[in-house]
Amino acid sequence: MARVPEPLARLIQELVKLPGIGEKTATRLAFHFLRTDRHDVDALAAALTAVREQIRTCRVCCALTANDPCDICTDPQRSGEIVCVVEESADLLALERSGSFKGRYHVLQGALSPLDSIGPDDLRIKELLARLGEGQIQEVIIATNPTTEGEATALYLARLIKPLDVQVSRIAQGLPMGGDVEYADTVTLGRAMEGRRRM
Amino acid sequence: MARVPEPLARLIQELVKLPGIGEKTATRLAFHFLRTDRHDVDALAAALTAVREQIRTCRVCCALTANDPCDICTDPQRSGEIVCVVEESADLLALERSGSFKGRYHVLQGALSPLDSIGPDDLRIKELLARLGEGQIQEVIIATNPTTEGEATALYLARLIKPLDVQVSRIAQGLPMGGDVEYADTVTLGRAMEGRRRM
Repeated sequence: MARVPEPLARLIQELVKLPGIGEKTATRLAFHFLRTDRHDVDALAAALTAVREQIRTCRVCCALTANDPCDICTDPQRSGEIVCVVEESADLLALERSGSFKGRYHVLQGALSPLDSIGPDDLRIKELLARLGEGQIQEVIIATNPTTEGEATALYLARLIKPLDVQVSRIAQGLPMGGDVEYADTVTLGRAMEGRRRM
Repeated sequence: MARVPEPLARLIQELVKLPGIGEKTATRLAFHFLRTDRHDVDALAAALTAVREQIRTCRVCCALTANDPCDICTDPQRSGEIVCVVEESADLLALERSGSFKGRYHVLQGALSPLDSIGPDDLRIKELLARLGEGQIQEVIIATNPTTEGEATALYLARLIKPLDVQVSRIAQGLPMGGDVEYADTVTLGRAMEGRRRM
């Protein structure tokens, strides 16, 4: 782009690097920053810097956290006997928002994916086995994504954990709330039938 | 959200303030910032601060610029006899990208909108009239948006400028490139018929 003032061009160039943001959205955002309160722009810049300086990985559950060990791992109200395994910290936050789990977590930081050459050693599996070795954990709920990679990871973990005399379960699959049987894909419908429950 | 580490929660909260960004996108972006190169995050934070510090309004054409007067107003290669009036600096950049105009600009910084109580005094109309008063400008092209507000602004300006013995024109309206007659709205089709050109 000719004639875009240099600081504005640089901001647009940085915004375009973000996922899901093309040049038009980046330009729109850049102009938004010019129109909004100076204070808001500074707050965003400070929040960006702070997030990289203050966020680290919990030494127990490998989740992203500002305190190490994290608030969930140190919360005496939460059961240390049941651990939910997720791929990413974002998954942990989604489950926390749902309020449906009161145990602790373990974040794998990914899923097995031979195509991207991500093997067991690239995930935080060793750390999970070490936690299980301490003997307090009675049940592991595997909440990896219902994708090829997530399913493979779940199977791999189940095979690894069962011999340790720990109960292993997998989160249910089926129709999402508000979903439509007519438009559901065949795999989801198959899983929904398999996982049916008595009423 | 419970349990989101505080710096991350603050970043999400700042991102949600941006136009077109909801809580899910903000969360996704925030996690993106945690994964990317530290250097990129700092560059974005710096670009945000710089844009607010260095960008101001050109004293001649009222466009956003890092230099005052702006590069277009001081460019001897561009004709000072023809001025294109736009609503916003973003419109100027879009026209510059198209490379279809080699004169100078005037940015109104808005359009007439009685419902939002934006009247002539809220726009940079006085500044435009002052430029016309200098006598160099021979033609004014009005490139406000083809919306109710933009049309009203164009009519208002045309009535104001014509008595000054300056030629006034309005950018053409019709079907966009790649558009489809079948799906075009009636107003666009009407304008396209009215504005037809001999081949």
